[in-house]
Amino acid sequence: MSLSDVLDRIDADLPAATDRLIDLLKIPSISTDPAFKADCDRAADWLVADLATMGVTAEKRPTPGHPMVVGHVGEGDPHLLFYGHYDVQPVDPLDLWDRDPFDPEIQDTPKGKVIRGRGAADDKGQLMTFVEALRAWKAVKGDWPCKITFFLEGEEESGSPSLVPFMQENAAELKADVAMICDTGLFQSKTPGITTMLRGLLGEELTITAPDIDLHSGMYGGIARNPIRVLSRIIASLHDETGRITVPGFYDGVPELPDALEAQWQGLAFDHDRFLGDVGLSHPAGEHDRTPLEMIWSRPTCDVNGIWGGYTGDGFKTVLPAQAHAKISFRLVGTQDPLAIRESFRKMVQDMLPPDCTVEFSGHGASAASGADTSGAMFEEARQALSEEWGIPAAYIGCGGSIPIAGHFQSITQTEPMLIGFGRDDDAIHSPNEKYDMESFHKGIRSWARILDAVT
Amino acid sequence: MSLSDVLDRIDADLPAATDRLIDLLKIPSISTDPAFKADCDRAADWLVADLATMGVTAEKRPTPGHPMVVGHVGEGDPHLLFYGHYDVQPVDPLDLWDRDPFDPEIQDTPKGKVIRGRGAADDKGQLMTFVEALRAWKAVKGDWPCKITFFLEGEEESGSPSLVPFMQENAAELKADVAMICDTGLFQSKTPGITTMLRGLLGEELTITAPDIDLHSGMYGGIARNPIRVLSRIIASLHDETGRITVPGFYDGVPELPDALEAQWQGLAFDHDRFLGDVGLSHPAGEHDRTPLEMIWSRPTCDVNGIWGGYTGDGFKTVLPAQAHAKISFRLVGTQDPLAIRESFRKMVQDMLPPDCTVEFSGHGASAASGADTSGAMFEEARQALSEEWGIPAAYIGCGGSIPIAGHFQSITQTEPMLIGFGRDDDAIHSPNEKYDMESFHKGIRSWARILDAVT
Repeated sequence: MSLSDVLDRIDADLPAATDRLIDLLKIPSISTDPAFKADCDRAADWLVADLATMGVTAEKRPTPGHPMVVGHVGEGDPHLLFYGHYDVQPVDPLDLWDRDPFDPEIQDTPKGKVIRGRGAADDKGQLMTFVEALRAWKAVKGDWPCKITFFLEGEEESGSPSLVPFMQENAAELKADVAMICDTGLFQSKTPGITTMLRGLLGEELTITAPDIDLHSGMYGGIARNPIRVLSRIIASLHDETGRITVPGFYDGVPELPDALEAQWQGLAFDHDRFLGDVGLSHPAGEHDRTPLEMIWSRPTCDVNGIWGGYTGDGFKTVLPAQAHAKISFRLVGTQDPLAIRESFRKMVQDMLPPDCTVEFSGHGASAASGADTSGAMFEEARQALSEEWGIPAAYIGCGGSIPIAGHFQSITQTEPMLIGFGRDDDAIHSPNEKYDMESFHKGIRSWARILDAVT
Repeated sequence: MSLSDVLDRIDADLPAATDRLIDLLKIPSISTDPAFKADCDRAADWLVADLATMGVTAEKRPTPGHPMVVGHVGEGDPHLLFYGHYDVQPVDPLDLWDRDPFDPEIQDTPKGKVIRGRGAADDKGQLMTFVEALRAWKAVKGDWPCKITFFLEGEEESGSPSLVPFMQENAAELKADVAMICDTGLFQSKTPGITTMLRGLLGEELTITAPDIDLHSGMYGGIARNPIRVLSRIIASLHDETGRITVPGFYDGVPELPDALEAQWQGLAFDHDRFLGDVGLSHPAGEHDRTPLEMIWSRPTCDVNGIWGGYTGDGFKTVLPAQAHAKISFRLVGTQDPLAIRESFRKMVQDMLPPDCTVEFSGHGASAASGADTSGAMFEEARQALSEEWGIPAAYIGCGGSIPIAGHFQSITQTEPMLIGFGRDDDAIHSPNEKYDMESFHKGIRSWARILDAVT
């Protein structure tokens, strides 16, 4: 039986594959919120059971956090590991969703059919593309293309605290020739890509305390230190007028773009007007002297992901709060050292504190940037397979997001990561009304079948 | 029957008076939160019923918001109006309360007995001091000392939206010789005072919007405008390095302190180390060239009472939020014009907005500062009566808080306001674990009896 038989099987089985994905999307596996711990466990059980139906004996492996799902099948070279994550982001603000985030449905839109629901694109829909491709392959050919390892995580959206220890304890078992990571997107929503450049991520939460208790601004206004004002000054000082980040030593290890890659990126003719216009923006807001693609792919960032303090309810309360809080994250590139930057950031904040203020920090993840070595033959074979499926030459692209596991495969199991995904810019991942295009799901499954055929 | 009979009656009736106050404190009359509208109504009914038990036929008078309670008794000069408010502040953060804010109790503390509960000091406990004084007077003397008007409001903690229209519609009925306003405190927790200088209040809520939807900071971080960063820059720019407020024209109408008053205030020997130390602070944080008493009594302020945006839950979410919000208030003095400052503030914010940002404002109250004319004989008579009750010479003092009604009595009913209250700096009004000292309640009631005796 040939590749085309596998592709035909995929086409015929699409309705059933869609039902399976919708089943998985109904499980609210929000890893960052302890209230959903049992649901994360349920999602892992669902995957073990689904893999069993296609002849894969996978196990739910415990960790101090949410479990890993690991399974091995097939024999022969190359040894391919497939990675995806079954956990999802929180859903607030819930009132901005058009429907229950965990009651997914297929919707007709002007741009085509979509699967609407939390996790549809990040990452349940994507991880099911390789699961369905391998299901079809096995059903048609009666065997596996080579040695396959499934490695599915449940903590990707909460900093993957258990990932490194688990990979270290099971390094031999998880070592493969290539780790196929399906958690990225198409370029400009139409050009298939293999992501070869990933930013790292450093998360910091800080709480500034001034008075012991909330105060009445009538009695104390004008004389008491206000922690919201202190926090605002600190945040305002993290960037200079040109958009550069002011944390001392922050740019140590930030490389300039290689000429060859710069040329290839110029060839991509990135349409940043559309990229920003899709979300109601028009001005690239990063470092003034950088191109839009550099801002999202190759330059480091500092952003505030959340801030809160004082009275935030209806009406008005003239309170001087005791505390103010913020969640701040840094996207890192090149050889920037997350731990050195954390230390420098915390010292900078400490040095800015006025009298009567104290600050507490808590770290949320610290991963360096990573890049793939594309010299191996499999990269070019995969790029050709993608080009054939999508009818557009696939590109080696960057990614503003952080997928720390790519670097972990390199450093812990000496496995080269290959990041291939089918998400679109307007999928609204991490936002209300997340969706995954049916075309991404369908062609994604077909893409993996072509890649399996090409690299084995 | 003499004044001492009235004072004896007050002493004997204190347990019953305390029970009545605790009854009133059990009603969660939070005026700023629509969820408690029925409770505000219930508090008004409670006051009408209680006044009836002492022979006062009061009415619950409707307004577009919460009702007013108005009652008249007695005859003869002077015509004294008594004002207090039955609404209270919200109770969050609830987890910082040692008990249910609306399950009040008498507690023994190292500083003496206190009545613990939301509204104990602001303002239910204070308004009941004059109610109980008049109850005792009537019971002992069989008649009222003069023409008395009760005027009790239910929107003081939410900007009093219905107050001015109501006073204008009922100006003739509410006109008196003096309006006794019981919503202020003792000086330094021990010296009785008549507050003759009150700051005004301007409240502004703003929402800054950048992208249409919450974005993933991996995909958009570095290129998309972050409204939290924009808001932080605006807040950080509201004060210069010397603590001066930078809103254009803000200081128009801010007077220097008259020499006589400055001399009297120096005589008060304000202990700002203790005032700040009580709440865990040590450094006066206002304009660098001003004394602590000026900072809280005679200088205008700008403070942030609340801020929120992005992800504020457990864990971490790498989101670029669509919106950021803040509640900002200004304390005003002298002849500062609240509406002119609102306009200037909004223009300043608009002018600071970078591309791709919009801002929406909503106003929460706008009242000018006010001061009392202390030349009338009644002020000196009241000051003497207070001095006798407390055994310490009473002072004419300022107040950092805003009690707009003082100015409304002057401008709408040409009635001179006399602000006398018995709160203490550590009452934690507007904060968790609010309390009112039993001594304040008891001596407060006795103080009003002495004042009634002195001015009639």
